[in-house]
Amino acid sequence: MDARDMLAVAVEEARAGLAEGGIPIGAALFTSDGTLLGRGRNRRVQDGDASTHAETAAFRNAGRRKGYRDTIMVTTLSPCWYCSGLVRQFGIPRVVIGEARTFHGGHDWLAEHGVGITVLDDTACVELMGDFTAAHPELWFEDIGRD
Amino acid sequence: MDARDMLAVAVEEARAGLAEGGIPIGAALFTSDGTLLGRGRNRRVQDGDASTHAETAAFRNAGRRKGYRDTIMVTTLSPCWYCSGLVRQFGIPRVVIGEARTFHGGHDWLAEHGVGITVLDDTACVELMGDFTAAHPELWFEDIGRD
Repeated sequence: MDARDMLAVAVEEARAGLAEGGIPIGAALFTSDGTLLGRGRNRRVQDGDASTHAETAAFRNAGRRKGYRDTIMVTTLSPCWYCSGLVRQFGIPRVVIGEARTFHGGHDWLAEHGVGITVLDDTACVELMGDFTAAHPELWFEDIGRD
Repeated sequence: MDARDMLAVAVEEARAGLAEGGIPIGAALFTSDGTLLGRGRNRRVQDGDASTHAETAAFRNAGRRKGYRDTIMVTTLSPCWYCSGLVRQFGIPRVVIGEARTFHGGHDWLAEHGVGITVLDDTACVELMGDFTAAHPELWFEDIGRD
């Protein structure tokens, strides 16, 4: 399973979120050999939950774990500071990112701290978030705490 | 309502968590005039939820908000990178911390980025976490992603 195969799972989550009226960001946590541990999507709209970004949803759905040394976080969008902090705190060593055009989060900071970063610049991810943020800027700004 | 009054709410949450068999860290989000917006506690043990630290629980329980410019995050323990990232991403301008002896998280980084930090070095908080981490080091290490 390569990075694009793993991203496809995150994109499925993002599309499911969009279909629910939510913010279309998806993520998944895998082991380095491609075993899926957890997948999830932003749940701000669906659950009224400001704390559940795609990465935190995938992390939660992976359950309790003793460590994350052998894991890869895959996300459709560059992780915000909140989700970048999650990656750093739990020692997730690699992050695969669908796109960083719509939003450039904390992935440079993660790279400075030894996290392997792959930005795929995936067209489907760019379109999903580009279209969404153009149509619903107020939801997007709310999701990243921008007044 | 001063910082110690606000901390008392977070300590109540931490003690409730301890009584449930959980990790005794509590937090609360207030407005700057002392109105409580949300309170919560670490839920790793109680819900099997690795993603819910005290600060994220308080943040979630405050509901969806357009902005956080007038808020204060109060927590019994120095916030980890994950929770520090939450504070930075959502522009929470002030953090009140019960103690930073048991664990020194990302609060210096937050201060560098303009967040007002108050460390109260509260004896009750030090005892709560000191006793807990001595008795249950494996749970504590799991909660901060330390192998």
